[in-house]
Amino acid sequence: MLFFTQCFGAVLDLIHLRFQHYKAKRVFSAAGQLVCVVNPTHSLKYAATRCAAAQASTEQGIPPPCHHHEAVHDPQLVPCTCPLFSCPWEGHLEVVVSHLRQTHRISILQGAEIVFLATDMHLPAPTDWIIMHSCLGHQFLLVLRKQEKYEGHPQFFATMMLIGTPSQANNFTYRLELNRNQRRLKWEATPRSILECVDSVISDGDCLVLNTSLAQLFSDNGSLAIGIAITTSKVHSSEAEM
Amino acid sequence: MLFFTQCFGAVLDLIHLRFQHYKAKRVFSAAGQLVCVVNPTHSLKYAATRCAAAQASTEQGIPPPCHHHEAVHDPQLVPCTCPLFSCPWEGHLEVVVSHLRQTHRISILQGAEIVFLATDMHLPAPTDWIIMHSCLGHQFLLVLRKQEKYEGHPQFFATMMLIGTPSQANNFTYRLELNRNQRRLKWEATPRSILECVDSVISDGDCLVLNTSLAQLFSDNGSLAIGIAITTSKVHSSEAEM
Repeated sequence: MLFFTQCFGAVLDLIHLRFQHYKAKRVFSAAGQLVCVVNPTHSLKYAATRCAAAQASTEQGIPPPCHHHEAVHDPQLVPCTCPLFSCPWEGHLEVVVSHLRQTHRISILQGAEIVFLATDMHLPAPTDWIIMHSCLGHQFLLVLRKQEKYEGHPQFFATMMLIGTPSQANNFTYRLELNRNQRRLKWEATPRSILECVDSVISDGDCLVLNTSLAQLFSDNGSLAIGIAITTSKVHSSEAEM
Repeated sequence: MLFFTQCFGAVLDLIHLRFQHYKAKRVFSAAGQLVCVVNPTHSLKYAATRCAAAQASTEQGIPPPCHHHEAVHDPQLVPCTCPLFSCPWEGHLEVVVSHLRQTHRISILQGAEIVFLATDMHLPAPTDWIIMHSCLGHQFLLVLRKQEKYEGHPQFFATMMLIGTPSQANNFTYRLELNRNQRRLKWEATPRSILECVDSVISDGDCLVLNTSLAQLFSDNGSLAIGIAITTSKVHSSEAEM
């Protein structure tokens, strides 16, 4: 009996996912684009840091500055870059992806253009929606974060980081696109390297920023579909322009 | 002597404007686009309303709801829609443009694609940058507003309104584009009718919204260049989709 109940539950879940997938495809109307349903994760990093530090700045939901390991003896080792957990792991850049997949259960998707469908946008801040994206021979980390920079006014921040060095990141351009209700919002930028801190990128506001009202206009039944595309940059000597 | 000093001042102003024009052209690198330097105006409407009402909501820089005239006897008459002043004028929709030009000195520009160069972005909120834009046989009002929705955190809001009816507005799409420092932000939407209230469009956040940090990334030496394009909508039966 229990077995049949579980089977029925699994079938219902599959129908729900299929329905969300269909909705996202309809929104973007781009045949061949992979739609990925991403469930929210309540960040444990902030919670742990808050308990430990209990600083005034973190009271308002502002994440603390990056806690890079104090003494990394081998300069080729990098700390764990997972935005969700304070993790003591460190290793070579080449094995960061497998660490994120295996230890932190972050999914990875293939394809130059995908649709990231974040569910349950109504959940209280701080909340993260995270996937890895593999294309053009590299892996990228996409982070959508709901956060209260100003108390009582949650905002959504979306950015893409290359799991690679800053000089490798300069070779790419990423685009995030929202499209619904006769409105379209596009953000294009060079991805940051995962060696920089995702928290500081978001607190600097150097990413796609959405107020709650705009997020509601772009979301459909509590889910926000973000079209993602990654291309190689035309201008490689980016530092000269900066 | 005074004459020569004035002449020298005028020449300096011209050189400064020419320099800003050149910079904006360089940013957008689109030959043939008209660059319009728009100086800020400190809105007198908010100041007057604040003095009169002194309500808690306006203390934080939130503009009051639209003050449409309480009794418009002729339904074909519309009140003055200037976002800057509380003006007792009312008249037919066809003469709103000439009223805005003559009484409120708002400039008008021709061309399907123009660059709106807002100067002195550092000025304190509330501040407005306003022009009218004539293209495709209609006139549009572009409003860029610096406002503190959250006390101590000014934001920039940009929107375009058609000087016409809501059903006429549904025939158009406007695009605002920021492009600098290897970042690009595009907002596309159907313009609202000037018969709706620009204050409520901005307080709803249904427009291009920029945090101060993003505005700084996109601005050059205190000026923000916004590329503007207006096209006729592909989908005319917009209400069906809504």
